[in-house]
Amino acid sequence: MNNENPDKILAEEIDYTELELDELEPILLEMFRSRRFAQLKSILNEMNAADIGEMLQDMIDEEDIAEEELPKAFRILPKDLAADVFVEMTPDMQKILISSFSDRELQEILDDMFVDDTVDIIEEMPANVVARILESVDSSTRSDINKILKYEEDSAGSIMTTEYIHLVPEQTVREAFAHIRQAGVDTESIYNCYVTDNKKKLIGIVTVKDLLLHDYEDVIGDFMEDNVISVTTRDDKEDVAQMFAKYDFTALPVVDMDDRLVGIVTIDDAVDVMTEEATEDIEKMAAITPSEHPYLRTSIFETWKQRIPWLLLLMISATFTGMIITKFESALAAQVALTAFIPMLMDTGGNCGSQASVTIIRGLSLGEIEFSDIIKVIWKEIRVAVLCGISLAAVGFGKIMLVDHLLMGNADVTPMVAAVVSLAVVVTVLIAKIVGCVLPMITDKLGFDPAVMASPFITTIVDALSLMIYMNFATLLLGL
Amino acid sequence: MNNENPDKILAEEIDYTELELDELEPILLEMFRSRRFAQLKSILNEMNAADIGEMLQDMIDEEDIAEEELPKAFRILPKDLAADVFVEMTPDMQKILISSFSDRELQEILDDMFVDDTVDIIEEMPANVVARILESVDSSTRSDINKILKYEEDSAGSIMTTEYIHLVPEQTVREAFAHIRQAGVDTESIYNCYVTDNKKKLIGIVTVKDLLLHDYEDVIGDFMEDNVISVTTRDDKEDVAQMFAKYDFTALPVVDMDDRLVGIVTIDDAVDVMTEEATEDIEKMAAITPSEHPYLRTSIFETWKQRIPWLLLLMISATFTGMIITKFESALAAQVALTAFIPMLMDTGGNCGSQASVTIIRGLSLGEIEFSDIIKVIWKEIRVAVLCGISLAAVGFGKIMLVDHLLMGNADVTPMVAAVVSLAVVVTVLIAKIVGCVLPMITDKLGFDPAVMASPFITTIVDALSLMIYMNFATLLLGL
Repeated sequence: MNNENPDKILAEEIDYTELELDELEPILLEMFRSRRFAQLKSILNEMNAADIGEMLQDMIDEEDIAEEELPKAFRILPKDLAADVFVEMTPDMQKILISSFSDRELQEILDDMFVDDTVDIIEEMPANVVARILESVDSSTRSDINKILKYEEDSAGSIMTTEYIHLVPEQTVREAFAHIRQAGVDTESIYNCYVTDNKKKLIGIVTVKDLLLHDYEDVIGDFMEDNVISVTTRDDKEDVAQMFAKYDFTALPVVDMDDRLVGIVTIDDAVDVMTEEATEDIEKMAAITPSEHPYLRTSIFETWKQRIPWLLLLMISATFTGMIITKFESALAAQVALTAFIPMLMDTGGNCGSQASVTIIRGLSLGEIEFSDIIKVIWKEIRVAVLCGISLAAVGFGKIMLVDHLLMGNADVTPMVAAVVSLAVVVTVLIAKIVGCVLPMITDKLGFDPAVMASPFITTIVDALSLMIYMNFATLLLGL
Repeated sequence: MNNENPDKILAEEIDYTELELDELEPILLEMFRSRRFAQLKSILNEMNAADIGEMLQDMIDEEDIAEEELPKAFRILPKDLAADVFVEMTPDMQKILISSFSDRELQEILDDMFVDDTVDIIEEMPANVVARILESVDSSTRSDINKILKYEEDSAGSIMTTEYIHLVPEQTVREAFAHIRQAGVDTESIYNCYVTDNKKKLIGIVTVKDLLLHDYEDVIGDFMEDNVISVTTRDDKEDVAQMFAKYDFTALPVVDMDDRLVGIVTIDDAVDVMTEEATEDIEKMAAITPSEHPYLRTSIFETWKQRIPWLLLLMISATFTGMIITKFESALAAQVALTAFIPMLMDTGGNCGSQASVTIIRGLSLGEIEFSDIIKVIWKEIRVAVLCGISLAAVGFGKIMLVDHLLMGNADVTPMVAAVVSLAVVVTVLIAKIVGCVLPMITDKLGFDPAVMASPFITTIVDALSLMIYMNFATLLLGL
């Protein structure tokens, strides 16, 4: 016998967890509009904080909900998700929320957050909001926050967290588990436990796996791994991220100059660094000043500022190429067919140079290539350049004679002109590949980021060189 | 009273663990040469497998030790490190080692390896070596290997491992810990435990942290997280890697089409995928066919094969640019000063196009931009292009009048010529930015990799367009 309300059955038949985010969004929005908050809350309760954050952000961006409604929407979130969702939001939304929070609400959110996430938020907030945040946390968290804030922007110290499981070598496995049970709730990463001596010097590491595989009465000091790979607070965060990739770690301890343990870097932050650094390299390679914000959240003016300095610099640099053309003006006027091959020659040179430079830049950034490899690299590029140059020249010669000379019947394009172009291609490719591999390596050696020595710069340099080569071959061989 | 042998004290005073890898390398090599194997072994015992693998590889590359000596060097390794070091080596070295192993040695190494690492090695080995490996593993491992091998190259199935901790909802925390203690030794990732029903359908997940924070008599089914985010075997591995970055996971369960748990992907493999994919994107953006091998390990011929197809294609495409110049030959002959500005115009257009395309490509690959944003993106690029175009044109006009006209006294460069160039810059920048953002988005929508629509292609297209614009302005405004 079925005496349940049929409407209720119908409503419960939809398994919201099976829906895609963009299917779920209008449903939740409708519930919010019609004030079905309890139902809304029960669905949100089953969702992941990252997804809720993304959805809320979408709704604000699409103006489905107004910024003023954000605090109301946020208060519907289940308590244990609120802090996680808060962390996922953009600084603008966080600012709106903080200003709407009561002191008590702010304190609750901050209590549920990990210290490294709090620091990330503080870095984006104006001074008055920072002051309010610092007032709302307890004094030990405040001192941790201040400690992390004082490290330089690209250092390991700036991405570490001060919350970790801390053991002493005299503890037994049983005591260690008791400590983890008690401290674990508030700790981001509990699976690597760090063992220090009485001066806080890092002397060992045990994993929860090690603990599980030992007897309860075993003593930590007897089986801990005492060759601990650690980084210092001042190490470059990019190098630290590379270490995660190399050693397959999920956390790395950070020590100060006296080898005392001050924090740990966790894999999720290392992954963020890797993604950011790859994006930065790609942007620099395309002559863009890297931005910290996603494309769609960057203002027009900010995007312009990222792009214009390099465009101006490169435009002005092209003056040299223009000067070379002006210098050979009479030769070009005497043999107008030569001009038609300038773009092809410049592009080919630029492409060859980019291929070499980008390969080397990526190799340097992944640590696969070092400055000491420079002779090996040059020798390799020379041989590749000869192969590429000859292939391109052969095909180019054939194409010019077939298409330009025969098919298009351009009488100016003589076999000698085709020969000049092909010769210029061979030499241009060789020089482009050498410039393309040497410049990034030297830039790196000098302590600058090699990524700026990619396509645009190489192209500008190779343009001028290829034109000089071409015009000299032309005047020499065509007697201009 | 000190009656120890002073030599021994001296030798023990060196703390090898404090040395950098490249300081340690000659010392270990010397020990190997002078057959001090016991001492060598004790130092290796304190080292990390990744470091030992790197060092051995270096020694072979630098020909410090011959390839024939590799098996001898490998046999010095402590037993519990051997498999880990083996995994770190290049396929060439693995092949040499396998052929020198006895059946028993091979079996021991394979026993100590995780299934996903074994599969990675099998994929690089010739058929006879694969057959030998499959004969040396037990039948359940063999069936797991075959299962993983059958998934497509870029799928989640191909990077998963079949070793994970598997619980049932009726188990208590105590039983779960007992199971982990017993199964944990051979399992790569024990901190996420997966709960399935009697049909192997994935119904929940508990972390070791959850287990530690519950009482021993609590039942798994009562507190497990039952909204499990999972991927299917066929999902693209790049999307899977992005999910790790988004949700801060350390492992993700992989299910088949019937929702049955078949394996897990761990964060270390996701990190490898992220790094590989970023490298591939960067290579494609520079018109290089991606390679699976690091630059210094790629043969000259292979590097040539990666680069030449695109160079040829782009060279041939430049024919159109040449044709435009040929078409306007008489105009250029009448006003030779115009030729000098062609490289500057083409480079500026190319750079503007690259900036837009690279930004969009990266945004697409990180999931920050989607095809539905195309109108927003175009509108943004138009406004940025107007800002950039006007800035460049203004500076360009000033520079031409100041440098080319006044300083270099080139009478051919009239204010009208400068005006033509500046106007052409504005329109070229606008078109370059639009082409640069639209092409990658359409390429992505059509299901191809947008990364090929980067600098080289955009440059070739924008070259032709910018020349047309320039020559049309010139004939119109200068009356050529």
